[in-house]
Formats: sequence, C-alpha cells, structure tokens
Amino acid sequence: MRHLLSVDDLGAEGIEEVCRLADHFTEVSQRPIPKVPALRGKTVAMMFCEDSTRTRLSFEMAARRLSADVMGFSVSSSSVNKGESIRDTVDTLSAMGPDAIVVRHRSAGVPQQTAAWTDASVINAGDGWHEHPTQALLDCYTIRQRLGTAAGRRILIVGDVKHSRVARSCVTAFTALGAKVTLAAPPTLLPPAVETWPVDVSFSLDAVLGDCDVVYGLRMQSERQAEALVPSLREYTAQWGLTAARADHLPPGALVMHPGPVNRGVEIASEVLDGPNATLVEQVRHGVAVRMAVLYLLLGADSGQIPPGETP
Amino acid sequence: MRHLLSVDDLGAEGIEEVCRLADHFTEVSQRPIPKVPALRGKTVAMMFCEDSTRTRLSFEMAARRLSADVMGFSVSSSSVNKGESIRDTVDTLSAMGPDAIVVRHRSAGVPQQTAAWTDASVINAGDGWHEHPTQALLDCYTIRQRLGTAAGRRILIVGDVKHSRVARSCVTAFTALGAKVTLAAPPTLLPPAVETWPVDVSFSLDAVLGDCDVVYGLRMQSERQAEALVPSLREYTAQWGLTAARADHLPPGALVMHPGPVNRGVEIASEVLDGPNATLVEQVRHGVAVRMAVLYLLLGADSGQIPPGETP
Amino acid sequence: MRHLLSVDDLGAEGIEEVCRLADHFTEVSQRPIPKVPALRGKTVAMMFCEDSTRTRLSFEMAARRLSADVMGFSVSSSSVNKGESIRDTVDTLSAMGPDAIVVRHRSAGVPQQTAAWTDASVINAGDGWHEHPTQALLDCYTIRQRLGTAAGRRILIVGDVKHSRVARSCVTAFTALGAKVTLAAPPTLLPPAVETWPVDVSFSLDAVLGDCDVVYGLRMQSERQAEALVPSLREYTAQWGLTAARADHLPPGALVMHPGPVNRGVEIASEVLDGPNATLVEQVRHGVAVRMAVLYLLLGADSGQIPPGETP
Repeated sequence: MRHLLSVDDLGAEGIEEVCRLADHFTEVSQRPIPKVPALRGKTVAMMFCEDSTRTRLSFEMAARRLSADVMGFSVSSSSVNKGESIRDTVDTLSAMGPDAIVVRHRSAGVPQQTAAWTDASVINAGDGWHEHPTQALLDCYTIRQRLGTAAGRRILIVGDVKHSRVARSCVTAFTALGAKVTLAAPPTLLPPAVETWPVDVSFSLDAVLGDCDVVYGLRMQSERQAEALVPSLREYTAQWGLTAARADHLPPGALVMHPGPVNRGVEIASEVLDGPNATLVEQVRHGVAVRMAVLYLLLGADSGQIPPGETP
Repeated sequence: MRHLLSVDDLGAEGIEEVCRLADHFTEVSQRPIPKVPALRGKTVAMMFCEDSTRTRLSFEMAARRLSADVMGFSVSSSSVNKGESIRDTVDTLSAMGPDAIVVRHRSAGVPQQTAAWTDASVINAGDGWHEHPTQALLDCYTIRQRLGTAAGRRILIVGDVKHSRVARSCVTAFTALGAKVTLAAPPTLLPPAVETWPVDVSFSLDAVLGDCDVVYGLRMQSERQAEALVPSLREYTAQWGLTAARADHLPPGALVMHPGPVNRGVEIASEVLDGPNATLVEQVRHGVAVRMAVLYLLLGADSGQIPPGETP
Repeated sequence: MRHLLSVDDLGAEGIEEVCRLADHFTEVSQRPIPKVPALRGKTVAMMFCEDSTRTRLSFEMAARRLSADVMGFSVSSSSVNKGESIRDTVDTLSAMGPDAIVVRHRSAGVPQQTAAWTDASVINAGDGWHEHPTQALLDCYTIRQRLGTAAGRRILIVGDVKHSRVARSCVTAFTALGAKVTLAAPPTLLPPAVETWPVDVSFSLDAVLGDCDVVYGLRMQSERQAEALVPSLREYTAQWGLTAARADHLPPGALVMHPGPVNRGVEIASEVLDGPNATLVEQVRHGVAVRMAVLYLLLGADSGQIPPGETP
C-alpha cells in the first residue's frame, strides 16, 4: 500500500492490521520515552489547505513519535484554493523530497490528484465532503477497544450525513468490519443517493435510539441554518440532539461518539459528553496511535530491518 | 512540583533552585553543541491563545535544547477565546499525550483551570493581568547575575502596574528574595488594592529615582491613552519615562530593566537602552536558560537517572 | 565566510564550492535516511517578514537534513515592518542564541543590517528588489547539472528585471561564472542604471530568442498592470511570454527556467512548462541541496571534525 486516500484502500483486513499496529503504538506511547526510531530521517509534509488543529497536531505527534521530521505547510485558502495552482504547489512541495504528504483540502479529490503527481505517499486528512479515512480508523479502533469488536454492532450515525466526510468514511469502515449502520437524520441532511449506501435510514432518532450499541453524532455546522436545511440549531437539537433525556433511552453501555469539535448542547448534551460512555477524549488519544500505524504502514513497513517498537 | 502557575508555587527556595539550574543551562548553551538529552522523548505543547513571539520562541528554544519535541499550537483568538470551549480544547490537546502544556491566555486563571483538566504539567506563560512567572524568574536571574543577589536591593517598578502580569509576578518574586520594591506610577495605573501589596508607592518618579539599584520599566500600551488613563504617551514620557536626563540621576551602576518589547523613547530613551546598564538583551538570553531550568524541574528532575548536563 | 548577504560574497570560486558541496548533499538526499549530523545542536532561525512558502520550506528542509534545529519566526508585516523595531527584533531573536538567521524582508538592506547586529550567521533569503543569493545559486547549480557548465552559455533573462531581486542575483552569479547574459524586457521594466550592468539588453524577445542556451522567465506581478508599467497581462504575454509558438524558435535543448511560483500562461505557456526543457521542478529540488551547502559552509565547515556526509 502506497497511499491512504480512502477507507476502501484498506478493506477489513487493512483496518484490522492498522488496529493491531495501533495496539503496539499505544504501548509505545505509554513508555517513559514514547518514541521509536522507525521513521528516522523520513519527512512528513503537512499540506493543510483548510483550517485544522486537531488532525494536524495528531499527525505531527504521530510523525514525531516515529522519529520522522515534520514539514509544516499551512496554506491560507486564498493562495492555494485556486484550483489551477494545486498542481504547481504539489510539484514544488514534492520536489523538496518529503516521504509522505498529508493532505487536507476543501475540495473532494485533491488527495487523489496529489497522489498522481508525486512520488511521496499521500494520506487523505479530509477532502471536502468525500472522505476522512484516519478518522474512521480511529473510530474503529475506539469501538474495538471498548466493545472488543465492531462486528455485529449496531451503530447509529446521527445528523448531517450529507456534508460529512467523516460519515462517508465511517460507513465504509464500520460495514467492512461487519457492523450494522443506521443513519438518523432529517431528509434535508441525507446525501442524494443514500438508498445505494449499505445502511438503514431513520427519520426519527427516538425510534432507533433504544436499539444500538453506538450512537455517533456528527458535527452540526451553523451554516446549515442559513442554508435553510434545518429551521434552527435549537430545533435541530430538539429533534436530533442527544439530550440527557434521550441518553436515558440508550441501552446500558452504549457508546457516545463524535469526531469533534463538538458543539456542547447542540449535537450532544454536556452531561452526556462528561459521562462514562462518551469516548471523545479516547478517540483523540487513539488518533495518535492509529496515525502512527498508518505512517508506519506506508513509510516504514517495507524497510524490513527496523522493528516498529525498538527504542530510539 | 508539577505545575508552574504562579511565582508563589516556588517561594524563595524554588526561585534559587531555578537560578542554580539556569547557571548550569547557561553553561550548556555555550557548548559547541548546546543540547542535552534530559527531556528526550518528552513533548512540550504550546497553547498560545494570545499573540506572542518572544515568549513562545524562548520556550521552544529551551525545549529543543533539552531534546524535547515541541507541539505548536497557536490559536487565533476567535476560535478559542470563547470561554466555553477551553475545556474541550484542553481535553483534546491533553489526549494527544504532551508532557507539558505551556499556556498563554488573555484571561486570568486559564492556566490554573488547564492544570485541573490535564495530566500534563502546566506552565503559565502569561494569563491576563494575573501572572507571568517565567518572566519574573528570568528577571531574578538577571539581577543575580549582575548584582550578585536580589536580597536587600531596592527595585523601582515604573508605569502601568495595574494592567501588568509582569509586575504582579515580579513583585512576588523580588520580595520573596528579600528585595525592597517601590512602585512608581500615576494613581490611574495602580491596581485597586495596592495598599495590600508588600511595596512602597510613589507618585513621582523623580522623587525615588536617586535611591534604587534597579529601575524596571513596564510596557506602556497605547490603549491606555484611549482609556483616558494617561493624557497622552508624550505626557506619560514627560512624567514617567526614563529619559536620558532622568537616567543621569540614577545611582552609578543601577540596572535598567524592561520585559520587552520596549517602546523606544516612551518608557525608556534610546540612549539609555543602548547604554551599559540596560539589561534587555541579557534578560532575553537568560530567558532560555531559565525556561530550560523550569522545564527540567517539572519534567526531568524526578526521572533521576538523567543528569541534566550530559551530552546527547 | 560568515554571512551570505549577496552573491558578491561568494565570487566564482565560492559558487563553485557551493556547487561541489551540493553534489555531495544531493547524494545524501538519495539515501534511505537522507540526513547527516553535520549541524547537530545548531539552531537555524527563520526571520521571514514577508510571505514565503517555498523558500522557507526549502531552508527548513535543508536545516533538518543537516540535523539542525529550526526556530520558526514568521512575522506578520504589521508588527515588524515598522523600520524602527527591526533592531529590537534582531536583538531579541539573536539573544536566544541561534547559530544562523535566515532573513527575508521587503526592504533592501535588512539582512546586511541584521548581520551588523548579531553574532549569528545571516543568510539573505530575499530583501526587497535587492538580492536573493540562494535562488541564484540553485539556478547556477541547475544549469551546471543540465549543461555541464555555465561558462560561455548565453542566458536570456526575460521580463520584470526592475522589481526582481532574483534577476539582480542571477546576473551577478551567471556573469561571475562566465556566462553571457541578455536582458529582454520593455523599457518600463528595466532598472534605472541598466547600462552599468554587465549585460546586453534587447527590447524584443523574438529578436534574441533563437540565440540562447537558457531562457529565464521572471515572475510578472499583476500589480505592474495597475502601475501602468504594462498595458495588461494579456498584452505582456503577447510580447514577452514564452508561448508555445515562441518556444519553437528556441535552439534545441535550450533550458526554460523560472524562479517560481509561475503564472502559467502568462510568463510561460503550460505546454512549455510541462515539456522536457523546463527545469522548474529541478530548481526546487536542487534548492534543498544548495541550501544545505550554504548552511554547511557557514555553520559547519570550520568545525573540522564533522565530515558532511557521515550518517547520523
């Protein structure tokens, strides 16, 4: 595997391999010196053409724990988002010789294009409404850590599926692992061809809440209000928010997940977020180990002689 | 000691310990390879929610000289300064596993809150008008280097004490070391309960200038003019500026200090800044060694087996 | 040599030495671990007071491949471009102890001033319309790689010479190496005293196109239109652009160079840029090796005991 552009590049087996490696890197992260020399001398370039703090920091942390160098490249939307120049930007960045380019862009497909233009490994860190594969991987890992396996689990994804790259990647990953996914959202927030997705759809959260192992809330952008896709955030919460009252109807032990950053009190109530079944902080923590696994798979695995866990 | 939130966390003994360690790290900084492996594999996260160049760079330099990794995290005021989300920001950052979080925030108390929410060591790099302990420490170290000791020294702090976290931390640190502090400022720039501070107050700079070992100018923000706290910067300088004429009345060898960045010609005249008694550049240089000392105390001292001075 | 402020600091011999070292570092860059310990423990500070991505990244990559630490310092124009504070900024940065300061500034002469104020080595990464020596060096290296030598080569520099620091540094470097340089530009885009430059001048690109080994296009800023120096970008391209039709009149094998970022279809047509004689991507790649050579010459060469190529 040279690139990670989509969850489809991995399949169930690839996801399992990432999770096994993430187990290893979780152990590394708990050492007094939480660092291995696996990617020493490699350079990971961050090509972030859209604001991001958590994903960028997580990749940087992962790269450094593998002893790779990080080449920061936060681009203001203005200079790069003109489609015509992406090719030249990639050519330039690529000519400097990074081993991996982590790409975030507001247009779907930019990571794929980038992969066609460079010798470096390309990792999709979120492209438009398309995919965000490492988010889905860390979610799979979180479910595996909490519930043992995703296979057979009933996962409820709630909210703005239409504009969510996270939802697309998660549906692919969860179903690849044998989970049963239900989308709960108003019709305005569902994607056009949702009937071709391997999911059930519910137009009522209350109708399906009692019958799941995981409820996964999606971020609600306030723009949706302006676009008249929801009447108001307050009404969105009334129907689709995981309020404390609704959380009482969840089966005992059902996980409450969210990719973050969460709007407290909109998608999920504060008391639910602070309860024992919410996994948001774990998701972030697992993100570092999972991204170490991905970087190692793409850049280090075939170097053979460097076992991932050796002390630097 | 797990955090450095306030100068009070240290006391006289702690300040002395920092200074002794800073002596050692000053020696390290003069080596051909000015780096020690003391914090190898540790990660220092910079959570700077307010603009800063010198303090951030100084901490980064200090961390790298101790072989720690640095996780940059400059936050635009807009996204984090909404109080409600600080908790989630800290949770997220903290979940990635940094060993220390260096916090700057325009609201007093954020470092304390951060410390309550994370397992990492928290260092206050300036919070509102409250405290800026590492600035006070590097000032103590500078006085010690120049005058041998701060004990018994007469230190004159001039200007906008009211809005100065530096003044608060310095008063605590200087008096802890046995110095005698006098504040010289117009009533509008003194804090409300100044009579409870362990200081003398003078409403005339000229009256006290001849009787000090150190004159410490505070930064004058031009906003104070708009707020009608001073008639104009020119009139401020006329009464409270350390002009060349006033500097002539200082006792021979009296130090001229300032936390920087200085407004040349406002708080202190250019010719005074460029004279032999001005310590601004030394303060910056000592800042790196002092912050190495603080990071080592918080993150490295109890690891026992790593002597701070070993070559990496 | 302590600083690199101008191509004149090097002369032909210095340029050749940089190229020989760059050969070595090109080989290093192709290793599985493309890193040498030559500058371990050294710190390279980036003082970029003007936007730049490619030059900054290239220097950072070069520094890291030499195992140096990088101190990022991107300054928004507002805070530093007030001339009065540059001195204090340099004093502050310098007091933190970097071994080199890489300076970019929109005012000519700032790197020279910086060199007078600091003990660190200063590298000019572009100052106003004055010089950009490492760009000229990587261009010399690119010509040497492609054509064996620059001596005797006929080099055509096309476009906005007046506002180009690249053109100034390239003319000096190319003529130092024995190339014959012709400037092709409208009178409005030539510098005032061009008759004192060691170059020929042509007011027609078509007249000189058939008689060169290298055509070097300069970036055309759209501001020139507003300043009425060119009627419009379209008319600029009609007369001065390297269109596909014009490229057909180039001698076979003539190189097409450009410092980037290029405006596709303005200075050079897309099909020409994507052809085998265009060297833009190579220029960027060579930039890393050339900057490694410069950093090594300034910071590492006299340390004697560290051969540049040793594995870290």
